[in-house]
Amino acid sequence: MEQPGRFETQQFCSLVDDIPFAMVTTRAADGCLRSRPMVASTKAFNGQLWFVVRTTASVADEIRHDAQVNVTYVSAPEDRFISVSGTAVVVRDVARATDMWLSVYQAWFAGGPSDPELSLVRVDPTRVEYWDRKTGRMRGLAGS
Amino acid sequence: MEQPGRFETQQFCSLVDDIPFAMVTTRAADGCLRSRPMVASTKAFNGQLWFVVRTTASVADEIRHDAQVNVTYVSAPEDRFISVSGTAVVVRDVARATDMWLSVYQAWFAGGPSDPELSLVRVDPTRVEYWDRKTGRMRGLAGS
Repeated sequence: MEQPGRFETQQFCSLVDDIPFAMVTTRAADGCLRSRPMVASTKAFNGQLWFVVRTTASVADEIRHDAQVNVTYVSAPEDRFISVSGTAVVVRDVARATDMWLSVYQAWFAGGPSDPELSLVRVDPTRVEYWDRKTGRMRGLAGS
Repeated sequence: MEQPGRFETQQFCSLVDDIPFAMVTTRAADGCLRSRPMVASTKAFNGQLWFVVRTTASVADEIRHDAQVNVTYVSAPEDRFISVSGTAVVVRDVARATDMWLSVYQAWFAGGPSDPELSLVRVDPTRVEYWDRKTGRMRGLAGS
């Protein structure tokens, strides 16, 4: 079983739970940093962050090449900006895919959680920061 | 004078011009990827992207250490997600700071565009991608 994250997971969930997409940034083989949106859901959060990807997607290749990633959550109307630094791995885990399944995935993965093209990205957070409106600075989440 | 970007700047502006903040991702000295919001404005776009920063901010240190950055723009209600990969430099340029000045900066830089604490981050884009709703994939902007 996975360990719960070291940081304050309840505060993290309250910051991100109404944000449906995260931007996931990876480092490509040429050193260039690339981002793309991925479906976010607190169903897919247990101290680690989980995302559904196509096994052959460029994001999966980039993570296999360099595990350092950043995940951002933005809710602009409330000046809510969250940055998660972490390391990522690409895994096959049908049980977890079933647990975190959302109907939106069906359009990409007709075979459901056991679709042979489906992998999961697991992010182990090393640093979680959020925009503190009072000070106008990023602030580390307790425990991160 | 700066060269205009190689990619389609008009299309880029139409994608981002109503998005007031970008998330800027840098690589810290320990290899970890970090993001923070920065004020975005098409006044600060001429094929390169320009942001106002405090000279001593961690983002400036990280860029001096590793020039590869990513800039994302998110307008979630319309599924609009833009990723700019590029290289960045931190410069002092009072004339440009004056050109791109917004009243929101005054709260951070009481001295205005010539505030001694104020620097600019210039990003030279190498790859611009946006989320294409029709195909459900990131797509390179023409010319990038």
